[in-house]
Amino acid sequence: MILILKPGTEESEIEPIRKAFEARGLIIQEIKGEATRMIGLAGDTSKLTEDDAMIFPCVDRIMRVSEPYKLASRKFHPTDSVFEIAGRKIGGGEFAVIAGPCSVESEEQVVSIAELVKESGADFLRGGAFKPRTSPYAFKGLGLDGLELLDLARKKTGLPIVTEIMSPEYLDIFAEKVDIIQIGARNMQNFTLLRQVGELKKPVLLKRGMSSTIEELLMSAEYVMSGGATQVILCERGIRTFETSTRNTLDLSAIPVLHTKSHLPVVIDPSHSTGYAHLVVPMSLAAAACGADGLEIEVHNNPEKALCDGAQSIRPAVFDDLMKKLTKVREAIK
Amino acid sequence: MILILKPGTEESEIEPIRKAFEARGLIIQEIKGEATRMIGLAGDTSKLTEDDAMIFPCVDRIMRVSEPYKLASRKFHPTDSVFEIAGRKIGGGEFAVIAGPCSVESEEQVVSIAELVKESGADFLRGGAFKPRTSPYAFKGLGLDGLELLDLARKKTGLPIVTEIMSPEYLDIFAEKVDIIQIGARNMQNFTLLRQVGELKKPVLLKRGMSSTIEELLMSAEYVMSGGATQVILCERGIRTFETSTRNTLDLSAIPVLHTKSHLPVVIDPSHSTGYAHLVVPMSLAAAACGADGLEIEVHNNPEKALCDGAQSIRPAVFDDLMKKLTKVREAIK
Amino acid sequence: MILILKPGTEESEIEPIRKAFEARGLIIQEIKGEATRMIGLAGDTSKLTEDDAMIFPCVDRIMRVSEPYKLASRKFHPTDSVFEIAGRKIGGGEFAVIAGPCSVESEEQVVSIAELVKESGADFLRGGAFKPRTSPYAFKGLGLDGLELLDLARKKTGLPIVTEIMSPEYLDIFAEKVDIIQIGARNMQNFTLLRQVGELKKPVLLKRGMSSTIEELLMSAEYVMSGGATQVILCERGIRTFETSTRNTLDLSAIPVLHTKSHLPVVIDPSHSTGYAHLVVPMSLAAAACGADGLEIEVHNNPEKALCDGAQSIRPAVFDDLMKKLTKVREAIK
Amino acid sequence: MILILKPGTEESEIEPIRKAFEARGLIIQEIKGEATRMIGLAGDTSKLTEDDAMIFPCVDRIMRVSEPYKLASRKFHPTDSVFEIAGRKIGGGEFAVIAGPCSVESEEQVVSIAELVKESGADFLRGGAFKPRTSPYAFKGLGLDGLELLDLARKKTGLPIVTEIMSPEYLDIFAEKVDIIQIGARNMQNFTLLRQVGELKKPVLLKRGMSSTIEELLMSAEYVMSGGATQVILCERGIRTFETSTRNTLDLSAIPVLHTKSHLPVVIDPSHSTGYAHLVVPMSLAAAACGADGLEIEVHNNPEKALCDGAQSIRPAVFDDLMKKLTKVREAIK
Repeated sequence: MILILKPGTEESEIEPIRKAFEARGLIIQEIKGEATRMIGLAGDTSKLTEDDAMIFPCVDRIMRVSEPYKLASRKFHPTDSVFEIAGRKIGGGEFAVIAGPCSVESEEQVVSIAELVKESGADFLRGGAFKPRTSPYAFKGLGLDGLELLDLARKKTGLPIVTEIMSPEYLDIFAEKVDIIQIGARNMQNFTLLRQVGELKKPVLLKRGMSSTIEELLMSAEYVMSGGATQVILCERGIRTFETSTRNTLDLSAIPVLHTKSHLPVVIDPSHSTGYAHLVVPMSLAAAACGADGLEIEVHNNPEKALCDGAQSIRPAVFDDLMKKLTKVREAIK
Repeated sequence: MILILKPGTEESEIEPIRKAFEARGLIIQEIKGEATRMIGLAGDTSKLTEDDAMIFPCVDRIMRVSEPYKLASRKFHPTDSVFEIAGRKIGGGEFAVIAGPCSVESEEQVVSIAELVKESGADFLRGGAFKPRTSPYAFKGLGLDGLELLDLARKKTGLPIVTEIMSPEYLDIFAEKVDIIQIGARNMQNFTLLRQVGELKKPVLLKRGMSSTIEELLMSAEYVMSGGATQVILCERGIRTFETSTRNTLDLSAIPVLHTKSHLPVVIDPSHSTGYAHLVVPMSLAAAACGADGLEIEVHNNPEKALCDGAQSIRPAVFDDLMKKLTKVREAIK
Repeated sequence: MILILKPGTEESEIEPIRKAFEARGLIIQEIKGEATRMIGLAGDTSKLTEDDAMIFPCVDRIMRVSEPYKLASRKFHPTDSVFEIAGRKIGGGEFAVIAGPCSVESEEQVVSIAELVKESGADFLRGGAFKPRTSPYAFKGLGLDGLELLDLARKKTGLPIVTEIMSPEYLDIFAEKVDIIQIGARNMQNFTLLRQVGELKKPVLLKRGMSSTIEELLMSAEYVMSGGATQVILCERGIRTFETSTRNTLDLSAIPVLHTKSHLPVVIDPSHSTGYAHLVVPMSLAAAACGADGLEIEVHNNPEKALCDGAQSIRPAVFDDLMKKLTKVREAIK
Repeated sequence: MILILKPGTEESEIEPIRKAFEARGLIIQEIKGEATRMIGLAGDTSKLTEDDAMIFPCVDRIMRVSEPYKLASRKFHPTDSVFEIAGRKIGGGEFAVIAGPCSVESEEQVVSIAELVKESGADFLRGGAFKPRTSPYAFKGLGLDGLELLDLARKKTGLPIVTEIMSPEYLDIFAEKVDIIQIGARNMQNFTLLRQVGELKKPVLLKRGMSSTIEELLMSAEYVMSGGATQVILCERGIRTFETSTRNTLDLSAIPVLHTKSHLPVVIDPSHSTGYAHLVVPMSLAAAACGADGLEIEVHNNPEKALCDGAQSIRPAVFDDLMKKLTKVREAIK
């Protein structure tokens, strides 16, 4: 971290800075320019916050050289993390596909889709029991009943389940019934929830917020991990831009960037990011080609009758074909 | 709402659409172009969601003509809402200023700031007890102790208090102790919390999410109001753009736009939006000049020692001068 | 196009609208809702502008159903365009790679890079003679001398050349010496230049502006084509977002979206979009996997000594390896 | 400027850096951390570009401490610039209003509007002769005839004129006939044009690009000034964001930010930025309240018949009322 001092800062104002940071085990170095005077802090600055520096009246602004996270950082964990979850592996060359309906609607629906995606090679079953909806008048999911249906589908197919938590009141039941707890884009900075889910020490799928930077995503992963969880999967699901022909703009360069900065696996959600079924296959293949560790895809056997987001769900036959192409693309880039 | 049909849609596919929407009391009209066929739905479409239309296989996409909210809409409440909260008024020409420290740090700090801002004419005291912080290693506020200190400051100064709720576990104590419950930008789409806070039927200050559209802000207000609350104050606090010289980009045109679409009061947060103390005064005056119903401003008697966000807090003397200028600007635009 | 009328519009105000658009061969249909009255215009509305409708006092706003371009639209040209340029093909399954240095620096430099990329299988040589630079104090390219060096490299290697035009004063020499004239992102809405380049009737590579929508890119292609050019190649090179870990955010979903809306070939620039050499290979492979018709890549034999943008150039050996992987990925998605 | 070196950089690699920058009169200082090694460059770094540092193989990335512009910077020109143009003053407390139609349509139109806005107190007449339009099929202005009509309006009213140049072919006639040459948002990074206009040494109104940062705007001003012009007026006209209820998002905080960084006057365009006539008055008042040096406003005596952008033009009576309120607001903030 570099502290840029205000013009006219006196030596006496710098002394307390020196003391404070030396007391934290950091090495202090100065750069004196003609116009600007700076202080460099060297050592482990990952737990230093901006406030720690801005508290000194003579500090004008700061520039970070190292990143403000540690548990999620590749610097402190140089090899790829590979997680084994309910017998499936993800990360470091192990590719996992999470598939299923946007929302759980009925036993028949979720079980039949689960069977189909399993047959095509999916590793995990996704399905929304609690659905975040922008309108208070829209279908919000079956809630706990939906969770029961997912549990049933797991028993019938053996597929471990991934579903989103929206409120701390259900922490216990999620801990008991859910294999990977999903934290949605809109809750990526619900810091209380991040911490509480982390304390469950279960696998977590953390979605990037619609306007969150890659660094903020890693800070939120750090929150979850600071609670005790170690198996955090990062998920890029599109960011908000001025472009209107897709629901969001899928930021695929986040994959190699995250792989540089972090050891955690990275999956892509081509369904919510684009908002259109016909974009799911090309964007899934592109994600695999630039090194994604997995995908989370909406599959519905009757998209036109889906109670939510049908327009972005692909049919089982399309999914089956996609799985074959994914294998070929992953082979091609080896 | 207009439904644009897929090319080659047959008459038989349109019949179920006609029936479904007529059953909801809507009037159905068709437009047949050479290339495109459309169905117009007229009547009260405010509770119609996109899903209601996209469920039909022949619908390609939809276009909204009316807005998807009702309780928050000016269309159904043509005059400005004026709220009376703990003896203060806001909305429809009544201007209210909420001021205080970013976070509550000690009795001495919060009481002395409260006294100073009251003297300058502030209507409400703000202060964070629970603070959302991007780093798990940063100061997160005093929590319930902070709430007690705010309560104390209220007793000493008579200023009603505004503070942010971050988790449903504190709903009861907020209902008891807080005059206006703030929902922060990062929780604007924490739909569970919106509903739960709405059910308290207390005044709510709802901050716009960093990447939320004006329509989404109004949808979130609709969520709170659908829970039972009627006194919802909307707060613009900067949106995320590519610009880096300010923390966020303050969208002041949101004030007249929100006034056109909604009857709810609109306040501006010039502190968090800009991130810099020297921008607070000019942006506050600009907000008043384009019709804001109030401001939420961070004031600290010792910004350099503030435990968070000191760089964006103004001093009491600057606040005092600002209050005088605000009166003049509001006079000027009458 | 749908015209939404102001509340209280009288029949007499609608009559002139009816007449005006019927005179242009359009069919007029009305939708009368309880609150909103609309007029639908059917027929060929591709040359209709917003002004044509907003000119009528009773029109509140308009909604487009069809796109406002024609020559670039797939609707009027359903099959993929395949261009043959100096013996190379691009579009409709024909994949072309444009490679070379950011800027032309010397005969030795450009010729040796041209020879290397040719050997690896590149189809075209790129190289900047005129360089757009944000600072007036930065190296702006060799200008006409650079053009001569490109011409020399073409003669020595047989590779056709792609280079950017920045000013109309060089139209003649570009017409004579350049195989594909590039219009840079910053000039995507330099409408005078678009038209003038279009009138040369030469192949054009049109880069998407940093904050341009996909529709605006197609409107700019329409400008070039309305001048007479038919061979316009669209290039996505990253859009500007709040994310700072890459120079821009590469919008790969633009590939399938553009293929849906237009018959023109789409190439990706992984160098300028990401800004980092280590992201060029993964993003190139991803582009190929989601259907790009080609790539434009910066290759430099000595990136550390490059006079501009060295940090984003890959070395010839990396390029050679990438070309092999690209073939495999393209095979995989067939 | 701070150069952050790659891990494992050897002393021998640093020597050439030291030599190169010492030769340019800069002072070199090192910071050695445990993990990161940096070099600080002190002295006048305003003409240093990123390339100058990235050229060294051991440099990983750079961080700027000082801004990369000089002529436009307040650091080298601490007092506000006040320009006197055709007898009117702008900057440093002198407020100027530029008003007139979006495009020049006829003698009757431009002269009558000029007379009306003059009467209300406008200082300059604006009017488009050459209009940038996204569609090649839209009205593009009267061209040279439009320039003649502006000249006529100036003769009749005495109002100096402001109009946009779109192509270098008209440099001479603009030099002769136009008082302030406007460079539009879409040409803000048309670097050739910037330089050429700068060489005319006439007053220039430079509009911020739709997705340009404040620093880029100042770099473009630096381009114009490096050509020789000294009277450059900066104009904020809205930036592109995800928000769709306004055409662009007007960034009013750019006013105090630009005033901190530069000595040049700052005007606001409330018409193009918002896109709606009913937002022009509130945003104009807000601009004045936060310190704008002027406004550029579209006024049309018959907005419904305007050949372009009528929806954002205000009527003369509204303008007249606005001028009175502006005086009061400016008085209020003194």
